[in-house]
Amino acid sequence: MLITESELKNMDRIRRLNIINSITGIKPANLIGTQNKQGNHNLAIFSSVVHLGSDPALLGFITRPTGEVPRNTLDNIVETECYTINHVPIDMIQAAHQTSAKYPESLSEFEQCGFDEQYLETFNAPFVKQANIKIGMQLAEIMPIKRNGTQLVIGEIKLMKLATELISKEGYINLEQAQSAGISGLNSYYQLHLLESFPYARP
Amino acid sequence: MLITESELKNMDRIRRLNIINSITGIKPANLIGTQNKQGNHNLAIFSSVVHLGSDPALLGFITRPTGEVPRNTLDNIVETECYTINHVPIDMIQAAHQTSAKYPESLSEFEQCGFDEQYLETFNAPFVKQANIKIGMQLAEIMPIKRNGTQLVIGEIKLMKLATELISKEGYINLEQAQSAGISGLNSYYQLHLLESFPYARP
Repeated sequence: MLITESELKNMDRIRRLNIINSITGIKPANLIGTQNKQGNHNLAIFSSVVHLGSDPALLGFITRPTGEVPRNTLDNIVETECYTINHVPIDMIQAAHQTSAKYPESLSEFEQCGFDEQYLETFNAPFVKQANIKIGMQLAEIMPIKRNGTQLVIGEIKLMKLATELISKEGYINLEQAQSAGISGLNSYYQLHLLESFPYARP
Repeated sequence: MLITESELKNMDRIRRLNIINSITGIKPANLIGTQNKQGNHNLAIFSSVVHLGSDPALLGFITRPTGEVPRNTLDNIVETECYTINHVPIDMIQAAHQTSAKYPESLSEFEQCGFDEQYLETFNAPFVKQANIKIGMQLAEIMPIKRNGTQLVIGEIKLMKLATELISKEGYINLEQAQSAGISGLNSYYQLHLLESFPYARP
């Protein structure tokens, strides 16, 4: 099946949205935890977390256009300059998906969806207790993507928490053992099965 | 195991690199195909392809700092303004990984690694015949990420090719059936198993 540009443009809006959201392949299922200065918590699922560099350790994620929907996560990050990224465990995919519902700002998705907050060191944002891999992030920069009104939120890793046995001596993290979930599109959740690790490739 | 900022800074360089590259969770395994004006082909594996928006249909990917290593993929994209994104099928993960080796510009990774070129419509970049999901992209913009010298390459979808049975009537793409692979870090490849698709979430 070949989908040309004009077929794409004339396609049913929802079908188009779902195809474009799943065409890139598997995406990581992460919950981003934040709080505002009043201490109200927010937890939201994101599938756009991307590695930007290792030294400094920078990760990015994409937010939808501001104005389109209330963006509690982004507002809180701007206010406190920190946030947590937590891998969704496969036995909590339904609860994680539920965080995408539009709750009023005064309600915490932690409580509404059945996750427990966890605080680590002096870090000023809530982690997800049930996540097997947790990352504490400090905001570095927000880059507007003018072409479609989205933003690339760039942060630096300040803290990581995961079980020692999930990391090999080389530093490989076993995502199958961590029970981390993947996402396709906006609605479909995947389990990961490790096939093989290859050495550094040479011609 | 808690890894603080100072522990991260003092860690063995390779172990640090591997941890930071795999901490975000699963990443999509994609081969990016390009050619220069002389018709020399290039094929390279990327794990940073990210959905930016559906209307217009924009995808991004991150390139490493220019100057650090030769960047045939980026040079070709700048030259021709088009490229292809092809899902790596799980039975070709070793060949796909091999495209990360530093071949001289004159050699095509298609030939060197055992992939066949395919041309679709009048699109001016080679697709990977063995990929079950193929996307034709037109360069929209290259955004420098000043903080670490990487770049976000933004492109618009012009063409998609995949088997009709991989797409549900709602537009969900079944990545397990497509045999699309995932990547953790720089070296580890995963198979995907679809667990569940949930409806749009409401409070």
